[in-house]
Amino acid sequence: MSDKTKPGNFFEDFEIGQELVHATPRTITEGEVALYTALYGGRFALQSADMAAQALGYPGAPVDDWLVFHIVFGKTVPDVSLNAVANLGYARGRFLAPVFPGDTLAAASKVIGLKENSNGKTGTVYVNSTGTNQAGETVLDYCRWVMIRKRDENAPAPAPVVPDLPARVDPGDLAIPDIEAAGYNAAWVGQPHRFGDYQAGERIDHADGVTIEEAEHMMATRLYQNTARVHFNQHTEGQGRFGRRLIYGGHIISLARSLSYNGLAPAMWIAAINGGAHTAPTFAGDTIYAWSEVLETADLPGPVGALRLRTVACKDHAAVDFPDKAEDGKRDPSVVLDLDYWALMVK
Amino acid sequence: MSDKTKPGNFFEDFEIGQELVHATPRTITEGEVALYTALYGGRFALQSADMAAQALGYPGAPVDDWLVFHIVFGKTVPDVSLNAVANLGYARGRFLAPVFPGDTLAAASKVIGLKENSNGKTGTVYVNSTGTNQAGETVLDYCRWVMIRKRDENAPAPAPVVPDLPARVDPGDLAIPDIEAAGYNAAWVGQPHRFGDYQAGERIDHADGVTIEEAEHMMATRLYQNTARVHFNQHTEGQGRFGRRLIYGGHIISLARSLSYNGLAPAMWIAAINGGAHTAPTFAGDTIYAWSEVLETADLPGPVGALRLRTVACKDHAAVDFPDKAEDGKRDPSVVLDLDYWALMVK
Amino acid sequence: MSDKTKPGNFFEDFEIGQELVHATPRTITEGEVALYTALYGGRFALQSADMAAQALGYPGAPVDDWLVFHIVFGKTVPDVSLNAVANLGYARGRFLAPVFPGDTLAAASKVIGLKENSNGKTGTVYVNSTGTNQAGETVLDYCRWVMIRKRDENAPAPAPVVPDLPARVDPGDLAIPDIEAAGYNAAWVGQPHRFGDYQAGERIDHADGVTIEEAEHMMATRLYQNTARVHFNQHTEGQGRFGRRLIYGGHIISLARSLSYNGLAPAMWIAAINGGAHTAPTFAGDTIYAWSEVLETADLPGPVGALRLRTVACKDHAAVDFPDKAEDGKRDPSVVLDLDYWALMVK
Repeated sequence: MSDKTKPGNFFEDFEIGQELVHATPRTITEGEVALYTALYGGRFALQSADMAAQALGYPGAPVDDWLVFHIVFGKTVPDVSLNAVANLGYARGRFLAPVFPGDTLAAASKVIGLKENSNGKTGTVYVNSTGTNQAGETVLDYCRWVMIRKRDENAPAPAPVVPDLPARVDPGDLAIPDIEAAGYNAAWVGQPHRFGDYQAGERIDHADGVTIEEAEHMMATRLYQNTARVHFNQHTEGQGRFGRRLIYGGHIISLARSLSYNGLAPAMWIAAINGGAHTAPTFAGDTIYAWSEVLETADLPGPVGALRLRTVACKDHAAVDFPDKAEDGKRDPSVVLDLDYWALMVK
Repeated sequence: MSDKTKPGNFFEDFEIGQELVHATPRTITEGEVALYTALYGGRFALQSADMAAQALGYPGAPVDDWLVFHIVFGKTVPDVSLNAVANLGYARGRFLAPVFPGDTLAAASKVIGLKENSNGKTGTVYVNSTGTNQAGETVLDYCRWVMIRKRDENAPAPAPVVPDLPARVDPGDLAIPDIEAAGYNAAWVGQPHRFGDYQAGERIDHADGVTIEEAEHMMATRLYQNTARVHFNQHTEGQGRFGRRLIYGGHIISLARSLSYNGLAPAMWIAAINGGAHTAPTFAGDTIYAWSEVLETADLPGPVGALRLRTVACKDHAAVDFPDKAEDGKRDPSVVLDLDYWALMVK
Repeated sequence: MSDKTKPGNFFEDFEIGQELVHATPRTITEGEVALYTALYGGRFALQSADMAAQALGYPGAPVDDWLVFHIVFGKTVPDVSLNAVANLGYARGRFLAPVFPGDTLAAASKVIGLKENSNGKTGTVYVNSTGTNQAGETVLDYCRWVMIRKRDENAPAPAPVVPDLPARVDPGDLAIPDIEAAGYNAAWVGQPHRFGDYQAGERIDHADGVTIEEAEHMMATRLYQNTARVHFNQHTEGQGRFGRRLIYGGHIISLARSLSYNGLAPAMWIAAINGGAHTAPTFAGDTIYAWSEVLETADLPGPVGALRLRTVACKDHAAVDFPDKAEDGKRDPSVVLDLDYWALMVK
């Protein structure tokens, strides 16, 4: 093989403290924003209309937070997870500054944990990834861990390091947008409720379901310049574990977020990712529904408060009965995503 | 169910004179325009090239009229037609001002008619909907009527009100673009004919056929932020009347419009919608053809004239024989759209 | 049939020296660029990030060269190849000036060769096509030849004229970008190699494979306003030679180019097309792989050198064994594209 082709890193290629500068910075334009709308149909007013954003003091509509996440995440794939068996978890993710069309994002990651699995074939790699804009400001900072294949099963195991990651981001650490709350327009937002109208324990069925097509999830994943092979190659995946192309987990996050507009329309900002699990694979033809639970509310100084939300996506099962843990403690088999995050809402 | 989830309005939720301010204004950008091209392949010079638009006195290429229509229409869906059984008709639609990338559209509707059906299960709701830009100018004004389910079959019927809607918009009421006709370039337009070359009664076969995929119509419908469930959810539609996802009728309008370039390339402006019927459902896999008939011509003051056109779309049937009414007065079963509108053309 | 519908030109409609001004100029925006990313997932730094382009002295990221090619090519289709049986070849193609979002391209072609086939039913038409921007600068100039049906098999054959086209563009004729090489950032590019690291004879497997969906190739081909019927109409193609819609050959070029990032990331400019053949048809469901061979290297004055590359795309066959000519001199049946071009790379 030519030395020019990159095969991706294997478990033994990582070491604690290693810094990975990911390739291909990316300018996010109005083109990406429109495609994101076509792929998920989001209706949050702040991201949909310059007019609504400007009324709150923004120069124009910021880019959807999850689009920012996917673009940064995509950059990490060739170096971090090209040889991944599974994307295991997220923690301590914070959205730190808004991104606007025209901004260029670059990504880097630091290896913060390593633990070989007992089978000697794979190991878990923990990375702290950041996305920065053209001015050098960090716009996103998050941790994730993935199970990676070893190139050589006989390679020695590194000393295990498992980082101490918090169960949730402390609400005092959230980046709070500096908005002019007087410009908040509930008619544009599409729902009259405000921060004080949501209580911990409340569950919301987001009602609608959306069926996924192969062309959609592949266009989305390419839009993010995410090159993970399992999403694109039916010729090999047809011979693989599922016989199908696997859908990028982030596609489900964005579908669930978009569905959550119905009931969470005022939750226009994602401030942090506390944790998340892609609990089952999804495939073209699956219909995704979602429901959310308010886990916690946190009043903050200034015009917005924070809701800690758990959004659960399920497939081929309407969320009206909130599929979740079954009586035996196992998850309902329809559940494909369990995401814990902080969103902000005007008081 | 949480009080946060919106179930959409049912027939008894509407009353005459009611004003509905629809949620989520939307900024239309060059991203939406590019997607619209990718979805339909339009080739009308005015909307395709800044250069062609500027030669006519525009600041740049305006947004396709039907894209404007779909965005405004999409906003009305959650309030007007989420529980619709059928979209019955359109009337008195006028495009009143051009829309450019960067403009933000908001939508509102007024209930102008109500009539319960004799079965007591559904009723017809007539609305007059408007789209306005960020400066408050009305860019589109149209009426449509839909059959809506009742929530409670025992709810009393309202006094029937059926608005008096004209069979066609009077050509004197059309908004006429103020163009510099000297900048008209027939080579760019792609067809030498002008207003005077078209006669009432003339029929034009638009020749090509285009097969629709699920990913395409769903991406289009989401681009319009149209949330009607029947377009997206195979899990429920698979159990429904057709066993399939129904395609948004506006998708067929845009496909037919795009096909109509071949024969109507100089008809670069849609000025009014006189009426229209989605005469049969369409599904992924259908191949759409179209033909048009010149119903009427109207000379106007200034450099453009108006053609009243009827464009008929049919599925899995080439339009070469102009499928239409059969001998028994019924429609040819291939016909899926029958649209009556005014287009403008340089003299 | 109405005289308004254009049926496309047949072989006997062409004559040597004929100039065809193609319809519908097109403004390429950030919307087209984003869609191109979603369709192919390109990761070349120059086209992906304003920041990377500006560091090299550009005002912002230029539009991908192949997107420029497809847009210009698409404009030629209604006049040149609507009645084509096959797209036979390309030669002497040069990219002469960068295109930026906001530029408007127009296209024209000159007939430079004609040769009727011995069967009397078809003939080969050679055209020299050019794309020009709104300032009148030529941005692309290339020759192609297509086999076109005759309208009337009894029409007399024209005197055969076969243009003398070079096997390759002379490297001295390449348009060389005037860049500030000091701004070249290998970390952003994603690969450390430079012009001097590539040698003639070197073969590079681009590793990944991508499966194509109907919605993707149709959206791409419409984005290019390419109206060739075989790509869109399952109703007629289902009855045709293959029973399927044929994929536009340029879609495969762009997929192969995008895959070639893995191994050719520094080859950020396409300077010329020496030749190319679509050696087998492709259909939705095919998985495309690619490999490249360095045919020749040419040092140039200034900071970049030229690599003459041959990129071969194959379907349902990983490129790891470089499928090409078989022992009997025939092509491996998996090969679908054989493209010969000059790319530029920083020294």
